[in-house]
Amino acid sequence: MRTVDWDENSNALKLIDQRALPHELCILRYDDYREVAEAIRSMVVRGAPAIGATAAYGLALAARQSGAKSPEELRRDLDAAADLLRATRPTAVNLAWALERTLSAVSNFDVSVDELRAKVLEEARKIADEDAMLNRRMAQHGAALIEDGDVIIHHCNTGSLAAVEWGTALGVIRMAHEQGKRIHVLVDETRPRLQGTRLTAWELQQYHIPFDIITDNAAGYFLSTGQAHKVLFGADRIAANGDVANKIGTYMLALAAVDNTVPVYAVAPTSTIDLRLENGRLVPIEERDPEEVLKLQINGKEVAPPGACARNPAFDITPYRLITAIVTENGIAFPPFSINLRRAVEGKLG
Amino acid sequence: MRTVDWDENSNALKLIDQRALPHELCILRYDDYREVAEAIRSMVVRGAPAIGATAAYGLALAARQSGAKSPEELRRDLDAAADLLRATRPTAVNLAWALERTLSAVSNFDVSVDELRAKVLEEARKIADEDAMLNRRMAQHGAALIEDGDVIIHHCNTGSLAAVEWGTALGVIRMAHEQGKRIHVLVDETRPRLQGTRLTAWELQQYHIPFDIITDNAAGYFLSTGQAHKVLFGADRIAANGDVANKIGTYMLALAAVDNTVPVYAVAPTSTIDLRLENGRLVPIEERDPEEVLKLQINGKEVAPPGACARNPAFDITPYRLITAIVTENGIAFPPFSINLRRAVEGKLG
Repeated sequence: MRTVDWDENSNALKLIDQRALPHELCILRYDDYREVAEAIRSMVVRGAPAIGATAAYGLALAARQSGAKSPEELRRDLDAAADLLRATRPTAVNLAWALERTLSAVSNFDVSVDELRAKVLEEARKIADEDAMLNRRMAQHGAALIEDGDVIIHHCNTGSLAAVEWGTALGVIRMAHEQGKRIHVLVDETRPRLQGTRLTAWELQQYHIPFDIITDNAAGYFLSTGQAHKVLFGADRIAANGDVANKIGTYMLALAAVDNTVPVYAVAPTSTIDLRLENGRLVPIEERDPEEVLKLQINGKEVAPPGACARNPAFDITPYRLITAIVTENGIAFPPFSINLRRAVEGKLG
Repeated sequence: MRTVDWDENSNALKLIDQRALPHELCILRYDDYREVAEAIRSMVVRGAPAIGATAAYGLALAARQSGAKSPEELRRDLDAAADLLRATRPTAVNLAWALERTLSAVSNFDVSVDELRAKVLEEARKIADEDAMLNRRMAQHGAALIEDGDVIIHHCNTGSLAAVEWGTALGVIRMAHEQGKRIHVLVDETRPRLQGTRLTAWELQQYHIPFDIITDNAAGYFLSTGQAHKVLFGADRIAANGDVANKIGTYMLALAAVDNTVPVYAVAPTSTIDLRLENGRLVPIEERDPEEVLKLQINGKEVAPPGACARNPAFDITPYRLITAIVTENGIAFPPFSINLRRAVEGKLG
């Protein structure tokens, strides 16, 4: 079962509810694009590639829901739906990328409204299918970087659940494992939403890859004592200079790795690379509900004192100088990133 | 009420149960040194200075409990009790320091057993009283480093609860606030035991100092976007070269501060400085129960999948090159620490 999938029988979008994992594997169905937008916002689905495919299917639903009588009318309805979907999460560029690509499928007004509706769904399907295929290629490229016996620190969730299938950084780890390399993963729990503890640990159990969960705070200890050999994570947006926007905490993890000369690999499809942005300071950083920080409990009790406030930025920027290489479906980009990321996007990494 | 106090009426040790905060302010009473050892191990009491005073009072209880007929016998019983108390937490040096100091009070065997018993209690009281006084002096020295308008990132809990009274790094913040400086604290939640969310946030509420709780992961974001101006924390042991052993996560926080040229201050009494240790690599790092990482809940549900394992180192080492200055009760030690820490211990910082 894919994380993001289209149900041919009922013409609905199916999403694995990632909020219910690891305790329940719930599949939710959507036939209204507005509910899809809410599903992205509330993180039923998360992970840059998964969000992109979900948004494209959201447009397919919007096309079905539209009562448009002309291609022009349909295009207006789709533009409005795309605006709603795009506004749900500002940081990951895959969301905007998938919407643009799907909208371009209705740029030809010489066909019927129904033909256009079919075109939108076809494009969404293509995006999802390509994502699965690209992620597999990415995993094959990246697995070459992993050595037998490696202990790898991994941040957030970048597995099958973060994409349509297979995943980005966790896809690399899975591929290396399937190649017979002995790997141990130190799973950053990834506060505040604990995607490491909830999702990555659960995925690693499915793949029978050995792991230990660690607090995000502990990564520096394992790196400075020589107990970790690689750091891997995904990306939500990569600027032209190689700065990586990713889950909050990535920057401090990369700093600790570099301080101990441990290589740092970001893994992302080229749809995550935003060549229009010169550097990472230009990436909009989403600040989410403080409740995500405050609501955790131990032994059934809230931890924070009543009345406490919190700040909750969801992403940070890891400067390119801390990144050893960026793994894409078109190969591995090494510095200078300002040259090699463009080559990756153009499929000319050589 | 002090965090660690002696009840004259019942001749018992009173501790604030820090596991019950911030929801309940419970005072626990101890008349058996073995239960005191368990209270240190299970973190009823924590914080390097508070643990030191608690252990000294533990010896006072052991002296009362001993049926010794001679000073030699009493000394043997106290040595055994000290061994038990010392083994509870390996990283903080204040624990061993307070035990040594209290034991030295029974080095004179020319007096009666009862006089020696009284001596042990007197020494424990002195350690507690001095801790309160030294912390106040430390806070006054440190407050000079804080500027009006500062946003300060603070790790773990270093306030009144971590000492007998007043505290170390949080004492500095409180003193600067009392001096009328406008301060905002970004409280690292401090996984896994969340001393920031549970204890520091609660203390800041008592002092009416404005704050926001942040995930430990988020410190790098606030530092790299210019939203934080100082980093403050305590210490559990400081080596002769200035390497600081402190709560897990301190190292990554200091890295992020230095990467953004934000000053990093450690605040600790000279009893935390261990001149016998050349560098931080020689500090024993306690690894605690993985359940501390795994047992957290959200909405009443466990987060980790059943069967998941964890690693839980409780401290890390921040190399001296990342520390701007170390604040002690005898003044502020700047680099070179190998010279100035010795001067601080000898009261010759000038």
